[in-house]
Amino acid sequence: MITSLSNGRIKQLITLRDKSRARNKEGLFLAEGFKMFEEAPLGQLKEVYVSEVLWRELEKDAEKSRTWKKLNACREQGIFMEQLSEEVFRKVSDTQTPQGILFVMDQLSYELETLIKQAVSRQKEGGRAPLFLMLEDIQDPGNLGTMIRTGEGAGVDGVIMSRGTVDIYNPKTIRSTMGSLYRVPFLYVEELASAITLLQQSGIRVYAAHLNGKQDFDELSYEGGSAFLIGNEGNGLRRETADKADTYLKIPMEGKLESLNAAVAAALLLYQAAGCHRKTKGF
Amino acid sequence: MITSLSNGRIKQLITLRDKSRARNKEGLFLAEGFKMFEEAPLGQLKEVYVSEVLWRELEKDAEKSRTWKKLNACREQGIFMEQLSEEVFRKVSDTQTPQGILFVMDQLSYELETLIKQAVSRQKEGGRAPLFLMLEDIQDPGNLGTMIRTGEGAGVDGVIMSRGTVDIYNPKTIRSTMGSLYRVPFLYVEELASAITLLQQSGIRVYAAHLNGKQDFDELSYEGGSAFLIGNEGNGLRRETADKADTYLKIPMEGKLESLNAAVAAALLLYQAAGCHRKTKGF
Repeated sequence: MITSLSNGRIKQLITLRDKSRARNKEGLFLAEGFKMFEEAPLGQLKEVYVSEVLWRELEKDAEKSRTWKKLNACREQGIFMEQLSEEVFRKVSDTQTPQGILFVMDQLSYELETLIKQAVSRQKEGGRAPLFLMLEDIQDPGNLGTMIRTGEGAGVDGVIMSRGTVDIYNPKTIRSTMGSLYRVPFLYVEELASAITLLQQSGIRVYAAHLNGKQDFDELSYEGGSAFLIGNEGNGLRRETADKADTYLKIPMEGKLESLNAAVAAALLLYQAAGCHRKTKGF
Repeated sequence: MITSLSNGRIKQLITLRDKSRARNKEGLFLAEGFKMFEEAPLGQLKEVYVSEVLWRELEKDAEKSRTWKKLNACREQGIFMEQLSEEVFRKVSDTQTPQGILFVMDQLSYELETLIKQAVSRQKEGGRAPLFLMLEDIQDPGNLGTMIRTGEGAGVDGVIMSRGTVDIYNPKTIRSTMGSLYRVPFLYVEELASAITLLQQSGIRVYAAHLNGKQDFDELSYEGGSAFLIGNEGNGLRRETADKADTYLKIPMEGKLESLNAAVAAALLLYQAAGCHRKTKGF
């Protein structure tokens, strides 16, 4: 059991929690909580840490617990496991009421070309039309996590983010994904413009949520593949990005509202297209 | 200028920030930031506090600033105004990078019967159909604020909340409303069930977002007045509340997701009905 905050592993965990640069350099990230642990792909799990108190509780109730079963699976795979004293655990955890389990994982890695190819061939084989979400410089970690989660619900084929978007491995983002982090493909790109071109070349239409849009988002049929561009919470899309879109969309607003929350806008657009794809069985 | 944290007014401000019971007892709340201040109805403003540094900046650039104009309007109304030293301001502010202006306001007050009556008569006169949002025990302040904001965009006639819902005057909720707090009518009720009955008696259909729903939310036409019930983030709706609804709705989900974020679910349902009302010009 680790009982000291000056332990090297503990320092490393805190660095992974707080520094996106360190996460990206090591190709690792830190996550926590029962749900995230139980759903974590074994192949990506590197280290697992359990609080002293949780460990005792799990031992007592071992048969019924999904967490215990997952811990056994980790042991069989030879994944590093260690107990932490309550005090140390609280210092490493990012939450106010920690659940008592945290772990280090390999970062996930996807390629845009592959994602597009898979989405396009699924449609050719009679499946749903391609659906992508593109994010420019989203700053709020909770917003990003919610968009990943909503993306899974809508059946998104990938979330493409500008370099200026908040780190998806930020602890608050991970939490807000509610496990979707493992299942929704995502990637950061240097230039959203090039990604837009790539999508367009594959026959996918790119729509920008834009205050200058004249086309109501819920009056299109989204028959083919669709990608939706969502801009920064405060400033919207950069002009050079918006210019590349095929169509500007408007989300009609009553009252005196300037804009909707970015995650809400993304949800409305993704579900609108997903609904059209669902109703036409993917064509 | 107030420079001491032990000043009685400062203690009162911190109490209003932190204690929902004190807010409700006094019938007051604390808000902050340029946007919230500029949009605040003068009639409800009680006290305004400006940080020393912001005050100097505003004086320099007085002609151009909307905040300065609003401060002048407050002065004309005889509203209490005071400067705070930077240190004191930072202690009272709920944000990490305070904008330098905070203020005390009267709480807003609405009656369900009146809101329903107004919505129903607007429809009779050729306007949009009634649209209500009903929330049971929503716990996340940001989620609640986002729902108020989305509600304004969708044109909601009122947000009806169970007593167990987080306090709408929580500083984080106020911030997330982005000013919609002033414009979207809302109220807390002892019993959601009675509110449901009242809506139904006025010909408004009550829909519950429910994991047992078989009816896809985007396959209905929502011709008449609609009210949408959204349950607690972790547990969904209580059975006795859900039982009172006319229809259970399903939001289809791909992947392995258990549920959508509550504010996302609310947005999808409200905009679906609002879109139907918009397209049929309110009938």
